[in-house]
Amino acid sequence: MPDILTKLPQFLTELGGVLAANCLSTGAAVLRAYATDQGPVTSYQEPAAVIWAESVTDVQAVVKLASAYGVAVVCRGAGTGVSGGAHASDGCVVLSLERMNRILELNAADEVAVVEPGVINADLNAAAADYGLMFAPDPASYRLSTVGGNIATNAGGLRCAKYGVTRDSVLALDVVLADGSLISTGHRTFKGVAGYDLTGLFVGSEGTLGVLVAATVRLKYLPLEVRTLAVFFQDFQTAAAGVLAVGRARIQPSIMELLDGASLLELDTRLGSDLVSRGNALLLIQTDGLAAQLEAELITAALSDLGGELSNAGPEEALRLMDLRRSSRGMEGDVESSVGEDVAVPRSQLVHYIFELERMAAHHEVGLRVVAHAGDGNLHPTFWVPGTDPQSTGALAAALNESIDVALAMGGTITGEHGVGQYKLRWLPLEQHAEVLQLQRKIRNVFDPLGIFNPGKAMPA
Amino acid sequence: MPDILTKLPQFLTELGGVLAANCLSTGAAVLRAYATDQGPVTSYQEPAAVIWAESVTDVQAVVKLASAYGVAVVCRGAGTGVSGGAHASDGCVVLSLERMNRILELNAADEVAVVEPGVINADLNAAAADYGLMFAPDPASYRLSTVGGNIATNAGGLRCAKYGVTRDSVLALDVVLADGSLISTGHRTFKGVAGYDLTGLFVGSEGTLGVLVAATVRLKYLPLEVRTLAVFFQDFQTAAAGVLAVGRARIQPSIMELLDGASLLELDTRLGSDLVSRGNALLLIQTDGLAAQLEAELITAALSDLGGELSNAGPEEALRLMDLRRSSRGMEGDVESSVGEDVAVPRSQLVHYIFELERMAAHHEVGLRVVAHAGDGNLHPTFWVPGTDPQSTGALAAALNESIDVALAMGGTITGEHGVGQYKLRWLPLEQHAEVLQLQRKIRNVFDPLGIFNPGKAMPA
Repeated sequence: MPDILTKLPQFLTELGGVLAANCLSTGAAVLRAYATDQGPVTSYQEPAAVIWAESVTDVQAVVKLASAYGVAVVCRGAGTGVSGGAHASDGCVVLSLERMNRILELNAADEVAVVEPGVINADLNAAAADYGLMFAPDPASYRLSTVGGNIATNAGGLRCAKYGVTRDSVLALDVVLADGSLISTGHRTFKGVAGYDLTGLFVGSEGTLGVLVAATVRLKYLPLEVRTLAVFFQDFQTAAAGVLAVGRARIQPSIMELLDGASLLELDTRLGSDLVSRGNALLLIQTDGLAAQLEAELITAALSDLGGELSNAGPEEALRLMDLRRSSRGMEGDVESSVGEDVAVPRSQLVHYIFELERMAAHHEVGLRVVAHAGDGNLHPTFWVPGTDPQSTGALAAALNESIDVALAMGGTITGEHGVGQYKLRWLPLEQHAEVLQLQRKIRNVFDPLGIFNPGKAMPA
Repeated sequence: MPDILTKLPQFLTELGGVLAANCLSTGAAVLRAYATDQGPVTSYQEPAAVIWAESVTDVQAVVKLASAYGVAVVCRGAGTGVSGGAHASDGCVVLSLERMNRILELNAADEVAVVEPGVINADLNAAAADYGLMFAPDPASYRLSTVGGNIATNAGGLRCAKYGVTRDSVLALDVVLADGSLISTGHRTFKGVAGYDLTGLFVGSEGTLGVLVAATVRLKYLPLEVRTLAVFFQDFQTAAAGVLAVGRARIQPSIMELLDGASLLELDTRLGSDLVSRGNALLLIQTDGLAAQLEAELITAALSDLGGELSNAGPEEALRLMDLRRSSRGMEGDVESSVGEDVAVPRSQLVHYIFELERMAAHHEVGLRVVAHAGDGNLHPTFWVPGTDPQSTGALAAALNESIDVALAMGGTITGEHGVGQYKLRWLPLEQHAEVLQLQRKIRNVFDPLGIFNPGKAMPA
């Protein structure tokens, strides 16, 4: 490490020689701004420099130099990740892809787009909408986050239960490897089974295997009809049971979001509304396609049998609530007194897991608020405590750890869609056995033998 | 090699000591029956023994011994593959998983099933149907092929454009590695992003990374409504243009099969029907879900604008034709005078590629018959020649090679769903660059450093 720090000035000088002047900064404010993403900061570290790549050639030059000097490279899109996957490590360079933001091709007949990594999710969707198409992955950050970042974390979102996660929309990738070489994986066709699924290996690899410089993504048809429903329940567990009732009706909504009473109260506080007077839990459901209306009616009937009450405020309110749910980022917490989680459990365990969450919150005397992409069992519980005194933070940590343990015991996962990053490293060995982690380290070593890409992230050392 | 042959008797003796008596055979007829799958045989080789594993413990014992003796292991499900991925290599053992055919769990609330690798696709679907669910992958071999084989080849089928390929239905795997250890990959939840996508890496790896001993698969809702249409066209290219017209209407059929005039003639010969009098090309389309009827009407209207004529023989005939299309296996050929292909091209190239196929057939003076999973651009052209004289086989080889070259030049792939196996090895370097092949070799080496799993398949040495 000290050796690397000695070489750093020479590395930065050489870097300055190959990049345009406005593509490199070591300014204090810049280093601070690019030191963290939106994930909890457990150990604050600053990069030695921030680089904005403007071309594949830029990326190759940076990676080659970084390999030669043994400097760590932390790739970054919009920095909207919430697991610290783009946090800087000491003496690294942060390689921002945000300026590589061109949609290189949008082919409506092929139903694909080819994009640079820095294209904003919402911009791609706006462009696709002109052709009646959409890019299905819709993380809550879609107005800000980049397609490259979506791919690096295999981002989820609201529409996953029907349209799949990011991986299901990625056909091919161009990637700069640790030696600076450029490779292409995958295929432009919807189907293709030649060779191992390297594309899938890169998706969700959190910047540890290479630098994604272009992606060919599959587009889906923008629905011809959409219906949005808000259905209130008197208690949270019954609302969760509603999710299973919709499944028994064999209807696949495009969105099925579950909010508990504390989340409704939080919305009321922000909006001046009075949602809590209408129920202690809410299911926000969207159906799409030409049967959207009929599906909405059948869902309403199924939920009514459980005591769910369709909001009489009409679809406009439901749409507005859906939009608020989508943009509820920042509610997750600040790590010290409030932490948002991202577990997923098998659907059958939803009701039971919610019971357990409420029990944990009472037992540890911590606050609890839960929103869930309920259609796929992906929950975002937020625990909070009143202060940062040792008793409070101890109770918070105990509740968090228990929420992970119980999810795993039910056959769940520590991260449904946010990624391991830096923050969830400690929990990964609870989910994956030592042999599986070791296999992944060996694969990482195949791609990055010097360990320059995002060291200390995604898997324990 | 001679070294291995010397050790073989001792290896077989040890094997006999750990397996039940009826789990091992070296009988000549058995060796012959298990020497090949349904793929073209370019170099016939027989195994030293056939083993039927009945448990995970059996698989571990066989793999450990094979590793110790350096004996190659060729895994096999039902042997319905058509690329020679399960062809034996000289002195190998064929490890049949067909007796590990239990559905270990079918959880309707979780919408998952856990199966042993030898479960027949159709059996899983029959069991799932009791709960209103289905296992979406439906290769033409679904009545015979195993889920393990479907996973090993990332099998496609008719419903892929809407429901995805096998990979999209696989959540988790249990795998026996080359050292005999058992690992679990993936998650039971629909979403999960902890660690690299090892599950995806195993899917489609054609038995080269480990032995799949259990799979957790996602089930989808069995459609509440289905409509099936047969639409005749006067020429093949216009029928292909119809596929794009359906896309422009933003309707996603569950199935969209395209048959050319020669395929209709073949059906007429088998059935005594007179399809060719009604058109020179046929689109067989299925819509599903609660809007199936409306979607079928809109598709009919879009195709009618291109001159497509809805068959007036009604849905029964359409269903029967669909069933015949599904079971049209064995039409692919015998390698010497007739070979079926499995290319995929971007959807926009469908019409042009079909024009090129017809041009090639005329130029090389070979017969041509084409069926296609047209919704995803996956074509199965069959070229044939009258005999096995050098001129005929030369023309056949020239047409085949050109069909591959032209598909690749259009941005296509050498294999949409059948796999590389043994037969397509020669073409893989045309699609994937040397660096990408080398990366895959390194990954293979991480999992199987001794190279015991399916040597000589899936990627060039």
